[in-house]
Amino acid sequence: MKIGIIGLGLIGGSLGLDLTARGYEVVGVSRQQETCDRALAKGIATITGQDLRLLDKTDLIFVCTPIGAIVRAIESIVPYLPPETIITDVGSVKGAIVAPATKLWSNFVGSHPMAGTAHQGVEAAEYNLFENAPCVITPIAETSPEAIAKISQIWEALGCKLYHTSPEKHDCAVAWISHLPVMISANLIHSCSEIKSTEVKQLAQALASSGFKDTSRVGGGNPELGLMMAQYNRQELLNSLLEYRQNLDLLIDNIEKENWDFLEQFLSDTQDLRANFLH
Amino acid sequence: MKIGIIGLGLIGGSLGLDLTARGYEVVGVSRQQETCDRALAKGIATITGQDLRLLDKTDLIFVCTPIGAIVRAIESIVPYLPPETIITDVGSVKGAIVAPATKLWSNFVGSHPMAGTAHQGVEAAEYNLFENAPCVITPIAETSPEAIAKISQIWEALGCKLYHTSPEKHDCAVAWISHLPVMISANLIHSCSEIKSTEVKQLAQALASSGFKDTSRVGGGNPELGLMMAQYNRQELLNSLLEYRQNLDLLIDNIEKENWDFLEQFLSDTQDLRANFLH
Repeated sequence: MKIGIIGLGLIGGSLGLDLTARGYEVVGVSRQQETCDRALAKGIATITGQDLRLLDKTDLIFVCTPIGAIVRAIESIVPYLPPETIITDVGSVKGAIVAPATKLWSNFVGSHPMAGTAHQGVEAAEYNLFENAPCVITPIAETSPEAIAKISQIWEALGCKLYHTSPEKHDCAVAWISHLPVMISANLIHSCSEIKSTEVKQLAQALASSGFKDTSRVGGGNPELGLMMAQYNRQELLNSLLEYRQNLDLLIDNIEKENWDFLEQFLSDTQDLRANFLH
Repeated sequence: MKIGIIGLGLIGGSLGLDLTARGYEVVGVSRQQETCDRALAKGIATITGQDLRLLDKTDLIFVCTPIGAIVRAIESIVPYLPPETIITDVGSVKGAIVAPATKLWSNFVGSHPMAGTAHQGVEAAEYNLFENAPCVITPIAETSPEAIAKISQIWEALGCKLYHTSPEKHDCAVAWISHLPVMISANLIHSCSEIKSTEVKQLAQALASSGFKDTSRVGGGNPELGLMMAQYNRQELLNSLLEYRQNLDLLIDNIEKENWDFLEQFLSDTQDLRANFLH
């Protein structure tokens, strides 16, 4: 089987490492010649290049570009593909991608592997990134069952734990546990950076330790990704932000009223509630 | 020098390990006989017991009880102490402690070592916990300069990086970088636990990965500690929460209006701003 990968960053590059290691012929395409050269040197692909026509005989293509470029990338490659080629993407939003991509290519099925590290780019690519990672497959009514089966099989072979759901339910779930955390974490960084007294701000900067570091990590991450989460999953993100703000108002109100029974219950509950989200 | 420690949990126990390792005679006092036995077995102290009179000939005492018990503990021990004994505490709020403690004992000086792990209790005590940790000394006008010098010296000997400031500035700084993160993190856990659709909630629980885990960590921590932060640093915490909410309103408003230039700048700034809080 010949597999194509468009976009050779952390996700595309890591996919390439695992797929070449499993003996597949992997064609890697990037807009940057330098990235192509690095990908070839690292063993991410067996052939690399900037020309989309390199993908013309692939059985399966992973589109690993930033969210905003996925549909355009599919539009650019379909003229070169035989109809049996299956295309998937790895974007962290699905509603804005699956319907238009399926219109462009009936053998399209959306994927979202929930894997990552703190780093970006081809140099960050690593083996076994997908081992034990959840991966969501998001078919719609028009999606070909063969494409679903084939894509599911390959993610499973890479070690993913599979979930199948609609693009809408996917986007709603990730708004809560992935996009909302980015925004509240970024807002913490901004708020702490606006401490009015210079002396107190410098002290806060000196004293910040692991608690601040962990809570602010995703807010200090890739700004392009955060922006695209908001642009392409705006309504679900807003819903989660509005609920979050309502709960915050309740919390503030109870602290103002010194309603310590409420706060004690609120903080005790989180230990158990959080455990439901850990694996 | 003979050093007393009241409260043999993570902080008191770790202090005991470092101090006994440096050859000090360490008297450990806990309300639980079992904790005293474990502390002795672990080498946290050279003598342990439940009786506060054990502290009668100590040169220096660390009060390492929960915040709400610090002033009461000092009140209980002062009848047994010679006037030259220096007392400090390790509480994470200082305004509510330093003034009343100084009234009870003129040789009192407040400390706050910013060290911790995810664990609690005597079993969690570890060597070198304070190595490179910031430690704030919070004198007031009445504090004895000798007490400040002696306490500063001992924290430095344990590896702490020292800061001297007023209890008020300390409480303001920690509200922002320590107490506020606990509340926004706990609020994330609650909000995600209230997702209305059961199917989406189960999916969110399955998909939550390192981003959710890190952002929710401090909110799922010791509820007693969170409660006391709010009770004993209520006004500073409220100030930070209200500013946080105001910034959140601005963020939500800009996402609602699809003002993507604002969001791009907001998310790009956080990378640099966050770096000011990391060491």
